[in-house]
Amino acid sequence: MPDFQTWISAHQLRFEEILKQLLPSAEIAPQRLHAAMRYSVLDGGKRVRPLLAFAAGELADADVARVNHAAAAVELIHAYSLVHDDMPCMDDDVLRRGKATCHVEFDEATALLVGDALQSLAFQLLSETCLSDEATKQLQMVKLLATASGSRGMAGGQAIDLASVGKQLTLPELEQMHIHKTGALIRAAILLGAHCGNLSQEQLDKLDRYGKCIGLAFQVVDDVLDNEADTATLGKTAGKDAHNDKPTYVTLLGVSDAKKMAQELHQEALRAVLGFGDKARRLNELANFIVMRKF
Amino acid sequence: MPDFQTWISAHQLRFEEILKQLLPSAEIAPQRLHAAMRYSVLDGGKRVRPLLAFAAGELADADVARVNHAAAAVELIHAYSLVHDDMPCMDDDVLRRGKATCHVEFDEATALLVGDALQSLAFQLLSETCLSDEATKQLQMVKLLATASGSRGMAGGQAIDLASVGKQLTLPELEQMHIHKTGALIRAAILLGAHCGNLSQEQLDKLDRYGKCIGLAFQVVDDVLDNEADTATLGKTAGKDAHNDKPTYVTLLGVSDAKKMAQELHQEALRAVLGFGDKARRLNELANFIVMRKF
Repeated sequence: MPDFQTWISAHQLRFEEILKQLLPSAEIAPQRLHAAMRYSVLDGGKRVRPLLAFAAGELADADVARVNHAAAAVELIHAYSLVHDDMPCMDDDVLRRGKATCHVEFDEATALLVGDALQSLAFQLLSETCLSDEATKQLQMVKLLATASGSRGMAGGQAIDLASVGKQLTLPELEQMHIHKTGALIRAAILLGAHCGNLSQEQLDKLDRYGKCIGLAFQVVDDVLDNEADTATLGKTAGKDAHNDKPTYVTLLGVSDAKKMAQELHQEALRAVLGFGDKARRLNELANFIVMRKF
Repeated sequence: MPDFQTWISAHQLRFEEILKQLLPSAEIAPQRLHAAMRYSVLDGGKRVRPLLAFAAGELADADVARVNHAAAAVELIHAYSLVHDDMPCMDDDVLRRGKATCHVEFDEATALLVGDALQSLAFQLLSETCLSDEATKQLQMVKLLATASGSRGMAGGQAIDLASVGKQLTLPELEQMHIHKTGALIRAAILLGAHCGNLSQEQLDKLDRYGKCIGLAFQVVDDVLDNEADTATLGKTAGKDAHNDKPTYVTLLGVSDAKKMAQELHQEALRAVLGFGDKARRLNELANFIVMRKF
């Protein structure tokens, strides 16, 4: 079995090719929109959500060709949310993954349409090829991604985020925001990967517990890194949230307690998948990676 | 059988209640986002796409409870596109369906999220309840709406529209734009309504031919009305496209030939569904309604 770094690199490389194939060619009309979609998705990001989908897929003995589509669907939703989030009416950011943001490289109207079209493409990917032995289960996958993306999931989390600027949130309120804003899609990535295989409801519940902890840990670590790193290392504007007067785990708990919280969530995530034994190896390694990462 | 006006009014009233139930309550967090979603969808519009879905559903002997969800999914995609289209970086419009546009009534960031969340909700509606006797057919419905909405459908049409400002388009180029921008979703509405029942591929192809003609006729009539009507009658800013130096059927063909084109498309649509006999009555009436409408 390859070591973790080899596993990650192989999947990242492979998945980049998958994304290149699944995104419409920039040669096809409307060319500029397709070029902007490819610009916004390709060549960037750690692909944390797809890696989680692949790890869950391996645990569930799923066909990797199926997981590719599920992972790509989740990543397109993530990518669209970044494009819209960077727009002037939201975070007004110019730098993302070390590159100019979509509305800077192209224009605002194109960025708006890029996000819209990426979301549609995500649902196309979940419906155009067979991803599960049972079509009813595949419909559940569509529903899962739709709810994770919508007003009670990611988009709702961003709305709570908007409303929180300049406000003193409590820890439960901050948690509520992140459970929606980043947590929902991370949980969806894991469950969608798992749904490509065959697991019992009890097993899926364990994975969901893992996903909930890792999703929150991811955000806590993000806040710590955002507080400590500089813009060059991060590949996006550092210290932005605190600067924008947005509540973060660091501003609320302090660096030390925020780090402690990440450690506790990390341990809880590992406990959730303990029963899978060595099958959960990649999920364990990804949990370590998410909590220990430096960028 | 009720006359056409009674049929329309009954469906419009009934569908408004359906939308009220399917949209998240403004009492549920995030309240402001949910309020803005309801504001943008409810109490407005002729509901042309849902009416087409209901007419196709009746032709296909489909369960109306199923068609409700399919029609709502299409209408939510349409509503999201209007919210995004009205934003300052697109058409920058302040009036829609006789009300302030979403970003004026709320704010730009909220309008962006409203559109995003409405799109997710559309796919949730297509996947969370049984809409077809066969789950594989329901997955085809998801794919159908996703492709009609995405970069090779509606969003792509808007990108072509953006690129056409200030340009002299040929008639085929203008048609290509509208086939995507408005045509794709109108065709999807008809096919989704039909898919809730049971039709042969040959019958679906006939409906699609009808949909293609009616979608284009709808746009030609829109251009004629936009040229002739005033803002109060139209409930949206009149003369906008011509004023924005966007090509229209009127600027390209003149009013008289544009009207003639609408009539020809109207006749072709009626011919496409002739074989269905009286079963196509509502589709015939809707074709008349779309071409003869005054607003």
